[in-house]
Amino acid sequence: MQTVDTLIHARWVIPIEPENTVFEHYSLAIHEGKIVGLLPTELAQLEYKSDNVIELHTHAVTAGFVNAHTHAAMSLMRGIADDLPLMDWLQNHIWVLESKWMSEEFVRDGTDLAIAEMLRGGTTCFNDMYFFPEISAQQAIKHGIRASLGLIVIDFPSIWAQNSDEYIEKGLALHQTLLEHELISTPFAPHAPYTVSNQPLTRINELAQDLKLPVHIHLHETEHEVESAFAESGVRPIDRLNALGLVNDSLIAVHATQLSDEDIALLAQAGASIVHCPESNLKLASGFCPVAKCLDAGVNVALGTDGAASNNDLDMIGEMRTAALVGKAVANNAKAIPAMTALRMATINGAKALGLDKQIGSLEIGKSADVIAIDLSDLETQPLYCPISQIVYAANRTQVSDVWVAGNHLLKSRHLATFKMTELKAIIDKWHVRLAAK
Amino acid sequence: MQTVDTLIHARWVIPIEPENTVFEHYSLAIHEGKIVGLLPTELAQLEYKSDNVIELHTHAVTAGFVNAHTHAAMSLMRGIADDLPLMDWLQNHIWVLESKWMSEEFVRDGTDLAIAEMLRGGTTCFNDMYFFPEISAQQAIKHGIRASLGLIVIDFPSIWAQNSDEYIEKGLALHQTLLEHELISTPFAPHAPYTVSNQPLTRINELAQDLKLPVHIHLHETEHEVESAFAESGVRPIDRLNALGLVNDSLIAVHATQLSDEDIALLAQAGASIVHCPESNLKLASGFCPVAKCLDAGVNVALGTDGAASNNDLDMIGEMRTAALVGKAVANNAKAIPAMTALRMATINGAKALGLDKQIGSLEIGKSADVIAIDLSDLETQPLYCPISQIVYAANRTQVSDVWVAGNHLLKSRHLATFKMTELKAIIDKWHVRLAAK
Repeated sequence: MQTVDTLIHARWVIPIEPENTVFEHYSLAIHEGKIVGLLPTELAQLEYKSDNVIELHTHAVTAGFVNAHTHAAMSLMRGIADDLPLMDWLQNHIWVLESKWMSEEFVRDGTDLAIAEMLRGGTTCFNDMYFFPEISAQQAIKHGIRASLGLIVIDFPSIWAQNSDEYIEKGLALHQTLLEHELISTPFAPHAPYTVSNQPLTRINELAQDLKLPVHIHLHETEHEVESAFAESGVRPIDRLNALGLVNDSLIAVHATQLSDEDIALLAQAGASIVHCPESNLKLASGFCPVAKCLDAGVNVALGTDGAASNNDLDMIGEMRTAALVGKAVANNAKAIPAMTALRMATINGAKALGLDKQIGSLEIGKSADVIAIDLSDLETQPLYCPISQIVYAANRTQVSDVWVAGNHLLKSRHLATFKMTELKAIIDKWHVRLAAK
Repeated sequence: MQTVDTLIHARWVIPIEPENTVFEHYSLAIHEGKIVGLLPTELAQLEYKSDNVIELHTHAVTAGFVNAHTHAAMSLMRGIADDLPLMDWLQNHIWVLESKWMSEEFVRDGTDLAIAEMLRGGTTCFNDMYFFPEISAQQAIKHGIRASLGLIVIDFPSIWAQNSDEYIEKGLALHQTLLEHELISTPFAPHAPYTVSNQPLTRINELAQDLKLPVHIHLHETEHEVESAFAESGVRPIDRLNALGLVNDSLIAVHATQLSDEDIALLAQAGASIVHCPESNLKLASGFCPVAKCLDAGVNVALGTDGAASNNDLDMIGEMRTAALVGKAVANNAKAIPAMTALRMATINGAKALGLDKQIGSLEIGKSADVIAIDLSDLETQPLYCPISQIVYAANRTQVSDVWVAGNHLLKSRHLATFKMTELKAIIDKWHVRLAAK
């Protein structure tokens, strides 16, 4: 018998790859952070032994969620300004508060709250875009979550950098510093076409190709964005990015609510990814991403919550449900975005977008043990005819019982292993007082 | 000092009426099933005493949710057939299973599961449409939940009745039997324009006017419904109902995804109510109800989950969130359906639709103590700037800690007072075996 670090016996295992597969009474053997065995429990009991055997008799075990677009630290501004359109919300609320309070402390504390929420909801990897990414990296490393931390670039000065050259230089330095950290990756993250000019975009594209880094950018979030760009320059943002060479297989285009059939064909041909953030798009009335059309055309569509200031949570189960439900109505086709597709958007498609699909996004031997367990015994997920349906259409975030990242058990029966809850609550209270005093 | 049955001290009380009001450190005094006091906690401690004082230091207390459209017993078919359009789902799956299994036992067991889920999610009143309403009534009375149980009428024979005359006679007899039960009301529930012909609709309208009962009907659920009716008869369903006299202040029109501006004006002028069921409409790709337009025109818009077979849950917090988010995108206006409006749709607007707004739907002195508490101390609802925003945009159903109906404490710190969970789980397992064997 082979001794392994962790042996999980589950009622169901949904490996993501192959698609539409549910293994019953299956086990996962984890050793040195990797998945080393995936086999029927009755065989696993003969082949493996471990000091750490986890019995999950009413649970589905699957790949951890990849939240492919976040602004983690903005969790501190959850619900501070609701029911407003994007530019009003940004200019009159969020940017006002950020310009007053942005600091290493804000990012450290807000990212901590976000990581706690994400782990409690089954997210094992998040793709962030925010100031002070070195602080986000520090907190991700501290808590053991996997993170793709955008090297943010924006033409405007902030407390983090004065101009696009400085943003890029600080980003490159951070990229070097973080190369050694297995759980951290560093895509470029130019904020948006309307906030980053051609010269830095061109340089970012060259650097991204040299360093083989993805480029994470907001793109076609609203009709206003597209129309105002066209009115000013005669070019739509996606065409401008394409002319600059950025529409390629490194592109992570977030939101994409305004896409023509030609845009979709362009993205598919380029091998680009889009990140669908349905709840944020709905809440800001930004528009409807044509998800079914994109998937049908072969575009890789990942899923993100966006920041908690515009969502107002970081709940990937809720986001899958919204994506599946809204995607059907937008496509005028109840067969569109079936439950399995939504689950793939939240796992393997996110991993592909981040260039991490060799490591994560599915439960396959040799991949990192980024694993979650969802307890489906609650009344609200009974009777159970199909665990994939129950996860996407009926479960809620509190049914995520256990989370592992690279084999580390970060959520144990709903208990966060790397957080002191009293400290986290004190941090929240401190920021509540400061931010509510606006 | 006045002695009362129950005294609740809460961090926040959201009374629903007046609108946009949040009382902090407020108390609710309940006696003989009614709200007798609503006042600051420091005054309540001087004016009232009780053997039953409930301290809710991190909770928002508000009116119980009114789920204005359900098919409760269909909870047994949760997730049995997903990702299908309405008529395929009905004809090839749901109706097949119903014709095989429909019985008093099916309705008793399915309604029990639904009542348990609804109470756990803060629903204190549900408006049902299903076969064997006398069995649903028996289960509602047993468990203490308030219910509006439709006297179903359909032209087709079922195990419950052979023709529309028999449906109506059985309904009238049940109405008489249930008159004495304070928590039960009995609207007429002709299934839909495409399943009930003019003669029974006319008779139902006359009876409803005489007995002062609402008329609960599916209306304009899909484009197909409207187009096929027009192709057959030259009249759209809403115009047909109007010609028959049914578009009046007793009408509860469910779904209403296909409404012209003239239809909306007609409904507003008639004082009719619509029930918006966004998750069911999205999942079946039925279309988008123009909620903001209806509200702006003065139509009373309530909220329902529909049955768990097409949702797939009975979660009114989730439904409020979906209604608020989708309503903004459909209106192309982020200010549409603000959080308070969604909360009113789920409470007082539902009560109005059912003709129960003198008794329930808000926390006002003299109204029935149909009250819920939502614990907002979870990380996912922190920091907290506005409890209404947190309930609608960030909370989840498991944060509902306590539920009272007519002063009876039916959910106590997440524990269901009137259910034996082992019995309920055995019932679920029994039906899982039967229905999965299709």
